[in-house]
Amino acid sequence: MQTGKFCDIADDFVHGENFRCGSFVIIEKGVVVGNNVRIEDYAVLKSGVRLGDNAAVEEFSMLLSGSRVGNGTKIGTYTKVGKNAVIGDNCKFTSFCEIRDNCILGNNVSMGSRGTLSADTHIEDNVIMKYSFVVTDTPVLGHEKDKKVGILKRGSRFGANVTIMPGVNIGENAEIGACSQVRNDVPDGEVWYGNPARFFKKQN
Amino acid sequence: MQTGKFCDIADDFVHGENFRCGSFVIIEKGVVVGNNVRIEDYAVLKSGVRLGDNAAVEEFSMLLSGSRVGNGTKIGTYTKVGKNAVIGDNCKFTSFCEIRDNCILGNNVSMGSRGTLSADTHIEDNVIMKYSFVVTDTPVLGHEKDKKVGILKRGSRFGANVTIMPGVNIGENAEIGACSQVRNDVPDGEVWYGNPARFFKKQN
Amino acid sequence: MQTGKFCDIADDFVHGENFRCGSFVIIEKGVVVGNNVRIEDYAVLKSGVRLGDNAAVEEFSMLLSGSRVGNGTKIGTYTKVGKNAVIGDNCKFTSFCEIRDNCILGNNVSMGSRGTLSADTHIEDNVIMKYSFVVTDTPVLGHEKDKKVGILKRGSRFGANVTIMPGVNIGENAEIGACSQVRNDVPDGEVWYGNPARFFKKQN
Repeated sequence: MQTGKFCDIADDFVHGENFRCGSFVIIEKGVVVGNNVRIEDYAVLKSGVRLGDNAAVEEFSMLLSGSRVGNGTKIGTYTKVGKNAVIGDNCKFTSFCEIRDNCILGNNVSMGSRGTLSADTHIEDNVIMKYSFVVTDTPVLGHEKDKKVGILKRGSRFGANVTIMPGVNIGENAEIGACSQVRNDVPDGEVWYGNPARFFKKQN
Repeated sequence: MQTGKFCDIADDFVHGENFRCGSFVIIEKGVVVGNNVRIEDYAVLKSGVRLGDNAAVEEFSMLLSGSRVGNGTKIGTYTKVGKNAVIGDNCKFTSFCEIRDNCILGNNVSMGSRGTLSADTHIEDNVIMKYSFVVTDTPVLGHEKDKKVGILKRGSRFGANVTIMPGVNIGENAEIGACSQVRNDVPDGEVWYGNPARFFKKQN
Repeated sequence: MQTGKFCDIADDFVHGENFRCGSFVIIEKGVVVGNNVRIEDYAVLKSGVRLGDNAAVEEFSMLLSGSRVGNGTKIGTYTKVGKNAVIGDNCKFTSFCEIRDNCILGNNVSMGSRGTLSADTHIEDNVIMKYSFVVTDTPVLGHEKDKKVGILKRGSRFGANVTIMPGVNIGENAEIGACSQVRNDVPDGEVWYGNPARFFKKQN
């Protein structure tokens, strides 16, 4: 195994062929990664993390205990993956993203910089979220323990600066324009935008 | 004292019982922390920082010189606390937060991810700020040296993506809805929202 | 050369007088910096990076391969400068900023926290961007490879939370109010705001 300088790697670390590792990396106990995996400088993989083949974890990112990342997925710089989160294959997270505990994401999901997914968010395959996306979770301010998140269904797409309010579901292949606040469920195949977001048209 | 690997800790560091410390941690001169304090990997405490009992500083966070953090307060991941900032007891900052120099925060203040408080912001007790909150400070673009920030009074609450314009004050127990821009002072006990935010109703 | 602890610095590193360097710093091959340069803790300068005199790179920041930073420019905390980006003199980036690959920025450019510039963005001299600014680049969601970015001309100014849509150009000395989404080109010397942004008045 070839690593950079000053790494703190547990003895039981298991990796496949062609493993590359930067400097100042932490890998805790029970971590298993596949072939052709790349871990960049200052990344930390907490206990029990699993990464598929061809996965990458970029600089200053952290994967918390028990999280799983699929084949070919890239966890970009300054990104936090919460405890027991499960992320599918060929996903891409740019920078400053936050996938909180127990989120479940499908395959081919992409998120631009500064996205936040509240805990337990469920995202299906082929979903595209651009810059500064957020799934919120607190329906009533001051009652922070009563949380509620919706589902983003397969093929849904979101422009920059979209806010999904608590418990709101987004339909298959729906599209939400930039700078929108979505307060209501959006049916399959519709385009909505605005603050609050309203129906604009059906997808072609 | 038990620490992780490769730490850079000043000789005069003072800590209470049950101190826990990750790897790649920097603690400069003159730092004093209480009992049951937890400092996670890649955290840096600059000179003269003080932390109360049961406080936590999570991964990739930085506390600048002279800042003070109360008992039971958690400084979340990727969070920056400015010089001489004073933060009360039992506060919580999620991730990617920025509390700039000389801010003063009361007790039980919570801030979701990606919040920014301009320098000298004053926040009273029991204030809740959700995701991507910002207190701005430049009334006239191009005159960056003339700064002005308001006060967030006790019990005020803010949904996701709220922008407080320079010098705007928020009253006690006032509530501001998600995705609002607040340009005017909000009186005690009122609910406002919108861009720009307008009066909606009195609190019950 | 005086450095902090646990640094990983290439043998061929070239620096001028009064170089200061924190702990846990990475400097790769082919890096050249001028006089009075300051590199703070956990910063990484990838191969071939060049910094002018009096430049500073703050904590947790990264400069990717081939990027160039002018004299007196400050790269703030948690900031990422992309490959081959070129940044002029006396610029200032606060925190959590992202200047993507091949961006070209003039002199005296300032960006508040959490700004993102898409790849290839061109910014002229004396531009001011406040908190959470973004230049987007994907005109059609789902066609992520067809990217388009506009130019921000000299002296243009942007309040907090402004989103520039793909390919939109901003004129000289134009000003965009806080919380605006800009969908159309803005002529020289005009003030616009809103979501979507509309003409408000001519600059005085």
